[in-house]
Amino acid sequence: MKKAKKKIKAAILIIGNEVLSGRTQDLNVSFIADWLNINCGISVDEVRIIPDIDKTIIFNVLDMSKKFKYVFTTGGIGPTHDDITALSISKAFKVKYGFNKEAYLILEKYYGKDNFNEGRKKMAKMPAGSSLIYNPSSAAPGFKIKNVLCLPGVPSILKSMIGNLKKYLVKGKVVSEKNISLYTVESNIALQLEIIQKQYLKKDVTIGSYPFFRLGRVGVSVVLRSDNKQAVNSCYNEIKNMIKLKKIKIFK
Amino acid sequence: MKKAKKKIKAAILIIGNEVLSGRTQDLNVSFIADWLNINCGISVDEVRIIPDIDKTIIFNVLDMSKKFKYVFTTGGIGPTHDDITALSISKAFKVKYGFNKEAYLILEKYYGKDNFNEGRKKMAKMPAGSSLIYNPSSAAPGFKIKNVLCLPGVPSILKSMIGNLKKYLVKGKVVSEKNISLYTVESNIALQLEIIQKQYLKKDVTIGSYPFFRLGRVGVSVVLRSDNKQAVNSCYNEIKNMIKLKKIKIFK
Repeated sequence: MKKAKKKIKAAILIIGNEVLSGRTQDLNVSFIADWLNINCGISVDEVRIIPDIDKTIIFNVLDMSKKFKYVFTTGGIGPTHDDITALSISKAFKVKYGFNKEAYLILEKYYGKDNFNEGRKKMAKMPAGSSLIYNPSSAAPGFKIKNVLCLPGVPSILKSMIGNLKKYLVKGKVVSEKNISLYTVESNIALQLEIIQKQYLKKDVTIGSYPFFRLGRVGVSVVLRSDNKQAVNSCYNEIKNMIKLKKIKIFK
Repeated sequence: MKKAKKKIKAAILIIGNEVLSGRTQDLNVSFIADWLNINCGISVDEVRIIPDIDKTIIFNVLDMSKKFKYVFTTGGIGPTHDDITALSISKAFKVKYGFNKEAYLILEKYYGKDNFNEGRKKMAKMPAGSSLIYNPSSAAPGFKIKNVLCLPGVPSILKSMIGNLKKYLVKGKVVSEKNISLYTVESNIALQLEIIQKQYLKKDVTIGSYPFFRLGRVGVSVVLRSDNKQAVNSCYNEIKNMIKLKKIKIFK
């Protein structure tokens, strides 16, 4: 992986009626975002979930690929009629949609010549000029064209492929994160956190405050993030002092 | 609830760094979308997840409120410095941001005058002209301004409030859905499904095909949706005939 010194911002585009209807719980956003943060120093700055409609896919792919360094799509690259991601992205970038030779050979070998039917062949069709994202679990590859990287919707398959994205990505500065969970309610620390946040804004530390319920008790997770590790540590100490002064217990 | 004869399309805007960073798994999209479909005949046609940045919130609220009949936001209405949804929406619609009298009284009563601190008071601040969405679990209300309805991010609190949205919504035509799960792989039925989909496109039936792994076996869920119930039923029969001809077993 090449390295960049600055922050790299990406977007995720979830393509699928089943997620919009509420029928399927998306699990890919948190997995991809977490993986990109930890492994690549890339932050996800926007996610959109859209239906399987070609005009909508075209609009969003073009819009997001202009705004972000990378766009990761999930869904719509299977064998059925409602899998229209590859065709729509071909239209978006005005390139031919057709068989990728390498993908065709991979799939033909996987299924065997006699079982390589029309549906299966469709999974070898993609925008001309695509590079493949190999799939160790079910053969059908994802693809990369320009700054758009297309992955399947099934979480277990997507997970098995994610490592193969690395060669296409420039590594950004990995974000430092520290968090602390407290036996308190947000409104008890809101004022103090605001003061500390103002102080650390210049050092590019963001402080997030998230209430939770766990084991029948309420608590707050305070999360500090920045690409300046030293600033995160010093902000963390500031918060620990505040907690001590207010006699708040730490959740372990 | 008033009733409309046509389809009503809505959008969801998830506001929160914690979802974008992958730290928190969103559970609200599937819950809200499902509830709107079943109870209100309202379909969710787009979801966006964005960070706690006021310019980004303003842009997306204005953009989505123009494109959709309703916009449901989640997150950013708590007591801490990173809760900026109400302030940002005030800026978006160019109305004053200040105390809502009714919300102030609700919260003052809930916490008691002596414990009603600055953080808690902040939860009574919202765009001028907002109507309240009552919160039976933790008092702090959501609000509605124009066609934007603002809910909290904590799933259990959001769930307790959802019924209180009904009075603000016009009911659309409820979508009929039928689904069938099969012991097969997608590529085995892709061609037949495509033919049936083409035939039923005129009748506004959409056929979705979703692979799954369950109890160590692979399968496909086929989902039919339309606001024309009769068409869904007849399409369902067509698919059952196809399954019989291909000797595919049904997953029960």
